Amino acid sequence: MPLDPALSQRILDAVDAGFEAQVALTRTLVSYDTTRGNEHAAQDWVFRQYRDRGLAMERFAMDEAAIARHPGGSAFSETHSKTPIVVGIHRPRQETGRSLILQGHLDVVPTGPVDMWSRPPFSAEVEDGWLHGRGAIDMKSGHVSMIAILDALRAIGLQPAATVYVQSVVEEESTGNGALAAHLRGYKADAALIPESMQEVLVRAGVGVMWFQVKVRGIPVHVREMGAGSNAIDAAWRIVGALREMEARWNEAAACDPLFGHIDHPLNLNIGKIAGGDWASSVPAWCTVDCRISYLPGKSADAAEAEIRACVEALTRGDRFLSNNPPEIVVNGFHTEGFVQEPGTEAEAILAAAHESVFGAPLRTEVTPAYLDARVYALYDRMTTLCYGPAGDGIHGVDERADLESVRRCTKAMALFVAEWCGVEPIGG
Amino acid sequence: MPLDPALSQRILDAVDAGFEAQVALTRTLVSYDTTRGNEHAAQDWVFRQYRDRGLAMERFAMDEAAIARHPGGSAFSETHSKTPIVVGIHRPRQETGRSLILQGHLDVVPTGPVDMWSRPPFSAEVEDGWLHGRGAIDMKSGHVSMIAILDALRAIGLQPAATVYVQSVVEEESTGNGALAAHLRGYKADAALIPESMQEVLVRAGVGVMWFQVKVRGIPVHVREMGAGSNAIDAAWRIVGALREMEARWNEAAACDPLFGHIDHPLNLNIGKIAGGDWASSVPAWCTVDCRISYLPGKSADAAEAEIRACVEALTRGDRFLSNNPPEIVVNGFHTEGFVQEPGTEAEAILAAAHESVFGAPLRTEVTPAYLDARVYALYDRMTTLCYGPAGDGIHGVDERADLESVRRCTKAMALFVAEWCGVEPIGG
Repeated sequence: MPLDPALSQRILDAVDAGFEAQVALTRTLVSYDTTRGNEHAAQDWVFRQYRDRGLAMERFAMDEAAIARHPGGSAFSETHSKTPIVVGIHRPRQETGRSLILQGHLDVVPTGPVDMWSRPPFSAEVEDGWLHGRGAIDMKSGHVSMIAILDALRAIGLQPAATVYVQSVVEEESTGNGALAAHLRGYKADAALIPESMQEVLVRAGVGVMWFQVKVRGIPVHVREMGAGSNAIDAAWRIVGALREMEARWNEAAACDPLFGHIDHPLNLNIGKIAGGDWASSVPAWCTVDCRISYLPGKSADAAEAEIRACVEALTRGDRFLSNNPPEIVVNGFHTEGFVQEPGTEAEAILAAAHESVFGAPLRTEVTPAYLDARVYALYDRMTTLCYGPAGDGIHGVDERADLESVRRCTKAMALFVAEWCGVEPIGG
Repeated sequence: MPLDPALSQRILDAVDAGFEAQVALTRTLVSYDTTRGNEHAAQDWVFRQYRDRGLAMERFAMDEAAIARHPGGSAFSETHSKTPIVVGIHRPRQETGRSLILQGHLDVVPTGPVDMWSRPPFSAEVEDGWLHGRGAIDMKSGHVSMIAILDALRAIGLQPAATVYVQSVVEEESTGNGALAAHLRGYKADAALIPESMQEVLVRAGVGVMWFQVKVRGIPVHVREMGAGSNAIDAAWRIVGALREMEARWNEAAACDPLFGHIDHPLNLNIGKIAGGDWASSVPAWCTVDCRISYLPGKSADAAEAEIRACVEALTRGDRFLSNNPPEIVVNGFHTEGFVQEPGTEAEAILAAAHESVFGAPLRTEVTPAYLDARVYALYDRMTTLCYGPAGDGIHGVDERADLESVRRCTKAMALFVAEWCGVEPIGG
């Protein structure tokens, strides 16, 4: 049942009225450096924010064994975050509406060279309607909007008339294990909404993503005897070449995909990090290349991994040096499957109407060639999972920033969605 | 005047008699980790060894300004060693012979992955006639042999009848600034002998060597927008490709060189170290490649550097990304010219005769496609510079080891050389 127009307007006004406070909260959250493993203090801040709003609180460590057993679980490594998952639970007085998971991730990717930034990456400055900083758009603006939606309802004496789980996770940028941990903990609802940095569109599908390291060991020698040794960096680069050929084959096949076929080169192999050798005048004995590759929904992580290994093994067999010094392939992060959020759900219709009423334009949907935590709920709970959120730029780059008017509009649309999906009831008894 | 055969035999016997002590000293020296910048404790040990043998001592810091002004000087960087140079000076009672510089370097290259070694790299174990450890052959065995030669003469009541400078330097593996600092300090002699790890041959010529870094900065973006950013690691690898083509041209030209033409591929570009990027799922914003390249004697370091820069600039002009983000070329180590030790000197004849008498085979000469400190004395003092020393393997690799019988024989040959070149006089008054 569509919201009463007067109620809608009250909700929109309440978001506006609270928007200054929402920006202040977001600036605080952006000011925390929450790169991988460093999210503890920010997560405790989130815990206090939820608790102070009267949510029932749960805080738990990720269950490494359960994650390891799950087909969507990714490998733990020494850099894996140990920050706990925080869930704030809103329970209505009367469960008359449909329940909802709101989820945001706290972790951000590294800044890269700070001197390439116009501002310190965690200074969280606001200028000309932009909030600047690493994580400003991916996804701290969306994260705080989950609170802002509840605050806006509360400001007009209302609360959702259904259970809402507000989940703050980590590891979205590296394994997806945070969302999976929340799923394994047993949190389920009638739908999930993840206010990611989606540039005001709804995600129709996301790719599977795998992180792997190529580790080569060479026989080190003095450079004057280069022929006698083998350069581990050169050998690693030969492997990269073979992987690029596999990437090209995958993209050729993807050109016919009904969902991703319209995107030019949807499946990217990224050589994100490389380290090798110790000394300019020694033939390097080792090289490690950190790769990220993606694949279409429908291909399991295990199947993708098998193809990657087969590709490297085929090169290795024909390579004089590598055949004697087989490289190691270590899956050290994402080991995830892509997902499709089929159209036609009632939740999507409600969000689309809310979006259109705020933006004055229809809600567009897009597939994304990136990983999203939405895969957990879409794949393993068959829940309707709406991944939608504000616009910004510099995501994973320099000078990341969030468009605050976009944040305001998306918060409004999501607030209307929550009110209609969950229903509302007066606060108090 | 050739040595009296009876005196020769006494010297050879004295080397044998002292060899156990020589090995013990060498083991002590190998047990020090003297990787770049870490030579202080070992250099102080050397200082005490020289002083305890009655040498007049000088210890001085490298004169950075003087090195910077010198055409054979290499760049200082934050990793440059600050270990002082130690010189022990033997002055005879009567200066009747020809003076000599004996020089050794203390610094060693990094071990690389320690788990690739059969033994801990600084355990300095002796087994089956081999002394194991990083630096065992390059060049701590030769370094200690300088002391052993003087000890052998002393053991039979003799000492050189000419000034002998025993110089312990550093930075041989990275800049050659240690030897240059000794030269700039004013040490000169009628010849120099450097007991390097030369596999029982005498060096006829050595190449010029340059260290440089290729530094690329890219525009980082999320991997899902790979087309919009540029991968700094990929771009760096394109530069490596252009440098490899230059290397091939240099080797084509070297095929006609009278000294180096017989060697297959004498001029090596080594990609010794690489580091780039921070995160598998971000397009890397930076990549630094550490390169070492060599060139024939006769080409100045400045000329080689100009060719390297021109090569990179030519690629950059035609590369869409690099032309907007010009890479930086930083010469951060060796900036040296090759040298030729012409045949026909009296010093060489004496060493050759000494070698033949010990080994029962003629002294072979070879050119080496590596850097040697000999270039300092050969180029800038026009001194006869004999670079010669024992056999071993694993140089700059793993499981480095010195062949102790080779060390013994080379010590004998060099002791005979010193006795004949400098002459001998009885110790004391």
